[in-house]
Parts: sequence; structure tokens; C-alpha cells
Amino acid sequence: MAKQKGTSARVLAAGLSRHAGETVSAAGWVHRIRELGGISFVLLRDRTGLMQLVYEGSVPAGLESVIRVDGTVTENDKAPGGYEIQVHATEVLGKAAGDLPLSVNQDLGQVGIDAVLDNRLLSLRNPKVLDIFRVQSTIAAGFAEYLRSQDFTEIKTSKLIGSGTEGGTGLFSVAYFDDTVFLAQSPQFYKQAMVASGLERVFEIGHAYRAEKHDTPRHLNEYVSLDVEMGFIGGIDDLMDLEVALLQHICSAVEREHHTVLQEYGIKVPDAAAWGRVPRISHEEAKKIAAGRSGKRYFEINPEAERELCSWAGEEYGIEAVFVTEYPRKKRPFYTYPEGLKTQSFDLLFRGLEITTGGRRIHDYAMLLENLPRFGLTEEGLGEYCKIFRYGCPPHGGFAIGLERLTQKLLGLDNIKEAALFPRDRKRITP
Amino acid sequence: MAKQKGTSARVLAAGLSRHAGETVSAAGWVHRIRELGGISFVLLRDRTGLMQLVYEGSVPAGLESVIRVDGTVTENDKAPGGYEIQVHATEVLGKAAGDLPLSVNQDLGQVGIDAVLDNRLLSLRNPKVLDIFRVQSTIAAGFAEYLRSQDFTEIKTSKLIGSGTEGGTGLFSVAYFDDTVFLAQSPQFYKQAMVASGLERVFEIGHAYRAEKHDTPRHLNEYVSLDVEMGFIGGIDDLMDLEVALLQHICSAVEREHHTVLQEYGIKVPDAAAWGRVPRISHEEAKKIAAGRSGKRYFEINPEAERELCSWAGEEYGIEAVFVTEYPRKKRPFYTYPEGLKTQSFDLLFRGLEITTGGRRIHDYAMLLENLPRFGLTEEGLGEYCKIFRYGCPPHGGFAIGLERLTQKLLGLDNIKEAALFPRDRKRITP
Repeated sequence: MAKQKGTSARVLAAGLSRHAGETVSAAGWVHRIRELGGISFVLLRDRTGLMQLVYEGSVPAGLESVIRVDGTVTENDKAPGGYEIQVHATEVLGKAAGDLPLSVNQDLGQVGIDAVLDNRLLSLRNPKVLDIFRVQSTIAAGFAEYLRSQDFTEIKTSKLIGSGTEGGTGLFSVAYFDDTVFLAQSPQFYKQAMVASGLERVFEIGHAYRAEKHDTPRHLNEYVSLDVEMGFIGGIDDLMDLEVALLQHICSAVEREHHTVLQEYGIKVPDAAAWGRVPRISHEEAKKIAAGRSGKRYFEINPEAERELCSWAGEEYGIEAVFVTEYPRKKRPFYTYPEGLKTQSFDLLFRGLEITTGGRRIHDYAMLLENLPRFGLTEEGLGEYCKIFRYGCPPHGGFAIGLERLTQKLLGLDNIKEAALFPRDRKRITP
Repeated sequence: MAKQKGTSARVLAAGLSRHAGETVSAAGWVHRIRELGGISFVLLRDRTGLMQLVYEGSVPAGLESVIRVDGTVTENDKAPGGYEIQVHATEVLGKAAGDLPLSVNQDLGQVGIDAVLDNRLLSLRNPKVLDIFRVQSTIAAGFAEYLRSQDFTEIKTSKLIGSGTEGGTGLFSVAYFDDTVFLAQSPQFYKQAMVASGLERVFEIGHAYRAEKHDTPRHLNEYVSLDVEMGFIGGIDDLMDLEVALLQHICSAVEREHHTVLQEYGIKVPDAAAWGRVPRISHEEAKKIAAGRSGKRYFEINPEAERELCSWAGEEYGIEAVFVTEYPRKKRPFYTYPEGLKTQSFDLLFRGLEITTGGRRIHDYAMLLENLPRFGLTEEGLGEYCKIFRYGCPPHGGFAIGLERLTQKLLGLDNIKEAALFPRDRKRITP
């Protein structure tokens, strides 16, 4: 790209060591200022990291101001990366106010989640916080990349729907000209429609909305859903195999691209071999295992049972992850393929949290119509949903991974809201 | 992945020729049936194309039914790809109703756009229609891939906002618990915030919403916006350079992955050299050029002027695309960087349609505050927007490409609604 006239090309923190002895130009945010016997040391933050600037006298810009400097690159063992810039000239590109409500350069672990989110425009500048979203970007890229390699087509489907396929509760309503429509809870209808269309294998990365009132460390009212749907499956093992391969691919990308970050924060991401060992157990079996550990009786896999099961898998298989299959018919949506009183379905629990729900779907029109009354539903009430199957549809199934949940669990974050740039909960609608 | 017991691995249409003489299994949709002297010929459609099946006698499934067949692969010059399957056994996986409201295998160019959209679940099965979305998937992939190679981070930002940065008109409102929020018209606030956060270079692929009442072949009320924002730019030429490089990358991916489709439909996608020649002319100059051609006077670049300018560029530069720069201050949003009565901004017109709006943004807090009253805006009315700059922000700018518009223009579609899987307009909210 065109260079600005009169300035040398910008050197980034990560590349500083390649310019020892040279006069360079650098730019970024004033992260920290330390004055020591008439000399000022500035840590300058750019998109690749931190570099040290040395000023004789004081620094002409306060914390978080954006500056461009010219100076000479000098070796210094004590500087990050082993080099620093002796500054000759400074241009203030964006002056920051002196009364910032949150210190960007502090350890935000010491600050409550509310202060972190109330001051989101500043807390996002913290390098550790930004790293979360750099990893999240890699997760999304790895998801898409692997699926494309397996002949999946990326789709973008409407988030404005006439009625809900998940049953109609928990929907946000939108005033749409003279109509009322709803924000989609999932692209369920559309991804099934696109399998039936002949694309056979589709994925979507898109927002999903749940108008649920809970305020917990594991729920968001708006989240990003990594959705997959695949035709001509033999059964749900095909889907779990695909999810394992996907997670292997994603984790190896995260490990490769964010090795330093993971090491710095002591984060361990499961390797390919570990994902390959994730056990697949039935819902009945899962309840027994959890009960055997906690001494309690479970009627469903609640959050406590999820944690017990992941600990169990960690001890038995060396990865805190488990596929739970064969959920009872009553606990799954109407479109789930039944098998007696159970269903051909699964959840993936990872590090104590359900990060995926998936399963085979009913693809037979008659079977679907028969199933609707059990759920108090009618063909008309579901809009055009049933037509997908009336027009001819292959056996198929799919799953969805919550992007924020996967990010949270891979990075060991306490609260899912830390894994959303601008989280939405019942009270939080800004920034 | 695990194979189904008792069946041989599935052979796809595109790979049939590699199995001459073998007994194979194939599966797909019954696309066409032709009976000829006691023999039936079926065109079976799968995700890779069409293959011919030969039945002695009649076919045990109607059009659009999904079947799995076992049979022997035989050479036949007249079959698509030069091979066909002599069927031994058929399993009907998904029976289609006999009264389909739209014939999938017809030329949909002969059917009106309303019938195509009213019967979307069927029209999407038409191979030519599906090809649109295969190309669209490649466009989105190419966009992300190129930006990642240039150190951009993908972000996912909230679509539920407290107020609009584009001025507040044309917003859909959402009932959000006890509040009213709006669907974002663009991620403008958020992408600028993420540049200022230190990510410096960000992109987002996400839905955007416009509550505008027009029903034209170039507008959608819900569309996918390919958004880019970049810090430390020297000026808008950096942005236009980036967009040229992006479009070169996207078009070469489309050409590479969809060569056959483009050839079949006689579609020409501009090559890298052509994108490199796109002229950059000022708004004043653009009005003069358009006026010189049509003999009319233009006060703004209206759709007619857009078409004139693209024809002009086609004749002069061999590509029907032109960057128009220096829009008057009054015609651009309040956050656009001013330059006298003009702005550091641009549109990209392509094949008669504006596909991008972009520009440098105001990054100086004082300049922004000074600009607000000209637009009847206040700092408070913009929520936290102005804080981005109060906290220190580098010079930056960005642009957005409408995914459906780019798809429409690359493929020469008459109506933008053809480039959306499930388009939303004033009257259309299903399927």
C-alpha cells in the first residue's frame, strides 16, 4: 500500500529486532510510562506486542494516547524483545483524555467483571483481553477452513423469522414494517432446507438470539453459533466424528498461531490425540456416572452433572470432554430423530460445560407430522418448515458449537461474557 | 467417517468416470425422468452435479425424491460426463410429494422472480440457483482469507444496539426485555472501536438491517455486509488499494473454483489486471462525465449516473468499475473525515451499481465534537461512540462491501434478491 510521504515505513513491535542500529518509525498506544532519573521509558503497544521507547526528559503524551515516533533501534536486554527505540521525534496522532475510568495496563483479573464490561472500550485494550479475541478469530477461521476442505458450503441465512422452530418461546420480537417478526434462535430451519436443496453439506457462522432471563456465567442473550448440517449421514457417529475432526483442526490452529499466548497464560489446549479419545456414553449411563461420583441422583444432566462427567472423562480418558448420546425424546426438540423413547442425539460437554447440541433430524414427512402433536405443534404453526420434507429430503443431521462457550472453555475464562466483545445480557445493551 | 453397514461407499457424480465397470452406490435427487421404449433414464442430482441412471422398466420414485442406488458404471457418450449407472437396486430415502408447485428442472429465467421466491424451498434446488450460493460462499471465503493474510482480525459484534451511528432513521426496533433496542445498520461503531482497541485491522462478516421501504432490484432490508476497518492509514488511497487487492483475490478464487460454472453461463469476472486499472475520480468529475454522456445534469450520483460512469470506465479502462472520491460533506455521515466542504471518502461503483461505501473517519475527539451539530447530533445521543476517540485513537478508515450486491454484479443477476438465500423485503418475511 502507498506510504505516507516523508515518513519511513512503520516497524512493528514483533519486528523490532530486525532493525538494530537503524532509524525507524513506530506507532501505537502509550501503554505504560516510567520515569527514572530524567529518562522516561514508555511501553508502546501495537497490534503485534509491546516495545520500549526511551525519552530524554518527559513524554509528550499521556497513557493510551496514540503516537508515532522516529528513533534509533538499540539493544537492551531489559526491554521486551531485547531491543528499544531511542526516540528523536514524536507526533501525537490521537490524544487520550487524562481521566480514563479504567487503567488499561493493570491486571484485569483484579477488577470485577462488571467494571470490565462497564468500561468495555477501555478493557478491550488490555493485551490479555485482546488475546481472547485473537484466539476467537482463529477458532472461527479453523471451523470454516476445515468444513470447506470437506466440501461444505458456507451459507448466510435470515435472522428475521416468522415463527420459531425451537418451539416459539424465548424469542425477541422485531417491529418489521406493519408486521411482527422474531430474531432467530438458530438457523435450524434454514440449514436443514439447504441440505435438502442439494448443497448437502452446509455451515453457517452467525448470530443467534435467546430471550431468556437468566444471568449466569454460561449464558448470553446474543451469541455466535457455529452451525453445521450434513446430508446422507449413516447415523450420529458420523456427526460426532466430524465434530472431533473439527475440534482437532481448530485446536491445532490455535496452538500454532497462539503458542506464545497459551504459554504465557499457562493454558493447555487438547491435542488431536486427546480429542480422538473423547468417550461417547448414553444419557442413562451419564446420569449413573455423575451420580456415582457426587452421591446425588440426577433426573437430567444439570450443570453439576456436566462438571462431574467432564472430571470423570479427564481421569479416565485424559481429556475433560464427553459426548452424551440417546437423550430422551421429551428433552429434545420435535425435529430430533426418535428411537423408541430415546433420540439419535448428542451433546458435547467440555471442561464442565455443554458446548454443542446435535443430532439426527427427522427427514421423513410422515414421521414428522406424526411427531408434531406430541410437542403441541401443528404443520401450519411451523410456517414452511414441513415442506422441506414434503419435497424430498435425505437423511441428515447436524450440530452447533457456541463460539463464545468454546472460546471460554479453551481459554479457561470464568465468565462467558469475557468471550464476547460486546456482550448482551438482560441489563447490558451498551456499548 | 464411519460407513453405513452393508453399503459400498457413495460415489459422487463428479467422480463417476473413475469407477468404470465397477458396482457402486450413488445417492441424490431425481432431477429428470425420461422413458424410452421400456427403459427409463433418470438424471440424478448430487452436490457435485448430475449423473445418468438407467432402469429397465419404470423408476420407483418421482421427481425430487431422494434415492440411493446400487449399479454398474458403464460408458455412454450421451450421458453427462460420459458414464452412467445401470441400476440393480433402489432405496427411496426421502419420497417427494407428487404435486410440487414449481418444476426444479426448468429454466427459472422463464419464471418470474416472485414465483422463484414464493417457492424458495424448491427454486433453491435448481442447479443454476445453487451455483449462485456456491460462488457467494467463495466470495466470503476469499474476503476473509485475504484480510487474514494482511494481519486483520475477524470480529463478531453485537447487532442489538441502543442507538444508530448512521443517524437514527431506518432502524428496526426490537423489544428487548423491558427496553427497546435496534438492529444495527452497520458495525460502524464497533469496527472503529476495535481499531482503537489495538487490534488495528479488523473485519466482520455479518448481517446489517435497513428499515427502508423501497422495493427495488438493488435493495434488501437484511443483507450481509463485508466490513473492513484499518488503523494508521495515510489516506483513502490506502483503503482503495486494499479494496482492489481484495477484489483481485476474491475474483481469482471465484475464477479458480467456479471456472466451469462461469463458462457455462458465459459470465466474465474481471481479472487482477483489470481491477488494477479501476480509475479514481472525484465526485465533481464524476458528475461531469456522467452528464457529458447522458446530456442530463446531475446533482448527485444517482443510479442512472452510476450506470453511465461504469460504462465510461468500461470503454476507457476495460473494466466497468470506478472509485468516486471527495463526496460533499453533506452527503456523507457525520463521522467522515472532512476536507473543506468535501470529505476523504469514496464509493466503488461496479457494473452500474454502488457496491462499496468507504472513507477515512474522524479520529480526533475535538474535531468530532465540532462536527456533530452540523448533523443535528449530540455526544449524549450517540451513546458511547465519542468515547472511542476520547480514549485515544489512531487515524483510520474502512469500507463495506455488500455481499449480495457483489454476488449480483459478478454473476450478472437482474435482481439482488436472487443473491440472497431467503431475502427479506417489505412484504417478504418467509420462508
